[in-house]
Parts: sequence; C-alpha cells; structure tokens
Amino acid sequence: MKVTKKDGVWAVSLDRGDDLRSCIEAFAEEQKIFAGKVEGIGALEDPELAAYVLHKKEYLRRTFPGIFELDSMEGNIALKDGKPFLHVHVGISGEDFIMFGGHLMNAKIGVVGEIWITPFSTPLHRVYCEDIGLARWDP
Amino acid sequence: MKVTKKDGVWAVSLDRGDDLRSCIEAFAEEQKIFAGKVEGIGALEDPELAAYVLHKKEYLRRTFPGIFELDSMEGNIALKDGKPFLHVHVGISGEDFIMFGGHLMNAKIGVVGEIWITPFSTPLHRVYCEDIGLARWDP
Amino acid sequence: MKVTKKDGVWAVSLDRGDDLRSCIEAFAEEQKIFAGKVEGIGALEDPELAAYVLHKKEYLRRTFPGIFELDSMEGNIALKDGKPFLHVHVGISGEDFIMFGGHLMNAKIGVVGEIWITPFSTPLHRVYCEDIGLARWDP
Repeated sequence: MKVTKKDGVWAVSLDRGDDLRSCIEAFAEEQKIFAGKVEGIGALEDPELAAYVLHKKEYLRRTFPGIFELDSMEGNIALKDGKPFLHVHVGISGEDFIMFGGHLMNAKIGVVGEIWITPFSTPLHRVYCEDIGLARWDP
Repeated sequence: MKVTKKDGVWAVSLDRGDDLRSCIEAFAEEQKIFAGKVEGIGALEDPELAAYVLHKKEYLRRTFPGIFELDSMEGNIALKDGKPFLHVHVGISGEDFIMFGGHLMNAKIGVVGEIWITPFSTPLHRVYCEDIGLARWDP
Repeated sequence: MKVTKKDGVWAVSLDRGDDLRSCIEAFAEEQKIFAGKVEGIGALEDPELAAYVLHKKEYLRRTFPGIFELDSMEGNIALKDGKPFLHVHVGISGEDFIMFGGHLMNAKIGVVGEIWITPFSTPLHRVYCEDIGLARWDP
C-alpha cells in the first residue's frame, strides 16, 4: 500500500493480495479519517458481495471465486461503534464482461487497487435503525 | 432526509420511501445548487430506468419492481428550463447480483440513500440539441 | 468538446463521435493535468472493453457494437511514459438494461459525455511492475 496526499485528498495504491476492508479501515483510523468519500477501480480476488433483504433484515451473501475487474466502487467511511467503517458498493466483471454488483463485504485486491479517499472534515456517524435493521448515516 | 455540509460538500442521507429525484431537485433549488456532482449508494425501490434510442430520439423505459441495491450512481445537477435538474445513471442489482443499468427516470429509496453532492460554483445549463433530441450540457 | 473550470474542477462536455481517450488525454496534456480523478456518464458507441488475465499478463478484449448507456465511468489520469494516460473502468448497458463492464480500451461518444475531471496537483506516475505485467500507480 502506497499513498500520496495533496490538497486534502488521498491517492491510495493497493497491492495484489491486500485485504481491501482492513487496509482502508486501518488507514482511516491511523489518519483519523472519521468520514469521507471512497472511490476506486482495479481488480478484486474472491470478492464477497451482499444484497440486503429488508423483510428479513439480513444480508444474502455470495462469494465470487477468482479475479474480477473492479468496474466501480463508490461509498464512504463513517464511524460505526466509534471506529471508521468502510461502506462501499461495487460492480465487478470477469472474462465474459457481465457485471455483478452489491454491497461489498470483503475482498482481496486482485491485481491493483487505485483508490481516491476524500476526507469529509466533520465526523459522520452510523446509528442503528430498528426499522431497517441497519446502522445508517445520521449526518 | 438529513444533510450535513462541510467544506462546500453535502452529505445527504435519504430515507426509505423518499422520492430520489424530487428530494434532490427540491434540495438543490432550496440551496441554490445550480450545478454539481452527484454520487451515491444505498438501495432503490421500483426504479424506472431508461435507455436512449438515438435514431428514435426517445427513451425506452423499464420499471424494475422491488428493492435493489444501488451499486453505483453517478451524474450531475444542471439547470434545465431554469430549474435544477438531476441527471444520473445508475447500476442496480437484486438477490442474484446481476446488474442492470441505465439513465434513472425515477425511484424511491429502498432502504437508505447515502449521497454526496459537490456543488460546482458556476451554473451549468442544459440546452436542447436538435441533432440528438436531448437537452445537453453546454458549459 | 466544451469545458468549464471552477474551483480547480473541470466540467467536460463531449460530443457524439468524439474519441473518448484521445479527447481526454489531449486535454490533459494541454492543461498540464498530470494526475487526477475522472468520472462521468453519457453514452458510448462501439466501446472496446477489456478484462485483465493475470496468469497470461494480457488483456482479453471485446468490442460491443452499437450505442450503449455509459452507466458508470470511474478512474484516473496519471503519467505513463511521461504522458497523461487515461485509466478508467466503465459499466455500460443497452436496450435490455443488462450491464457489461471492464477496463475501457477505446470508445466513441454515443450521444453525449458529461465528465468531471478533478486534477490532483502533484503528478502520479505509472511504473511497470514485472509481477503483474502492468504499469501501475506508484504514488
């Protein structure tokens, strides 16, 4: 993992095999990024995606074995239980170019990860909401 | 709908059932956001997507019944006929993780909406272009 | 191609038939944008996508004939061999709304292109990495 900061924005380069969630969350904690925008491309290995099933209040999870292009990654960092939590949704595709998408549970970096982190200089908190069964943005 | 602003950027949290287009456009009008970048994730209910058919100069529309992950939303606010108009494209997926995408006509928020609005501090106008049959960015 | 700049960010409007890669790279060279974020929506014609096959260290390419909604485009400009190089991944869809995605090799603009370029005011370089067979971000 290599990073450069300029004008408050971080360019983050992740390496093959890096665990995306733990790299970003540890980096956010170290840099005291308590809120911010996260965007990026690259490739993922064995990504675990999820779709939220509202009437069950639980995630349906599926792991996609292999290396996939990371076609889109959008989301944010916010504080959940006092710690930076990465909430991103992704679109991925393999050699047939068909895209699968969802909430990203976990993934390793497949080839490279080229990520922009734009801190939001006031903390954003996630607060558990009984109605939906999730900790949601409470800005 | 809850919002926080910092360093000129808005973090916007939308609630289940909110109408995405009217919430963002009313907010933009109230805040005098006449141009800007719009990005976000969350979930949509009953989204209506569209694909533009250039040789007919019309949109082919399709409503996707149910709740879908909002895997990506990118686009902008610009002035159309003098009012803030939301132009975003989205990628969505359900419990089979297969992604569908297109121009977003309308959608309700399915679970949450976590959206960044970055105002562009000079207005951008949409001007009708006869050749393509659409009001396009004329920066 | 029309552009407006405000607070350091460019709004770029591309026209039907424009070559996406050469327009953006020539613009970046002219404006001395040696690093930056690139995002946008619109439509593409005859896009050529690619999936990187790591064990072969080569791209598998496929051209999608026709006009497709550009549902998402994320990525960056960085210097490769001393010149601004556009690295973006896209999600596209046609009249059946099914999304295809990958690394964008080339595409013409199909209807419009509405693109944000946010310069990163220190150069980012791509350096060839033997292990993966690609020139990667070395921030």
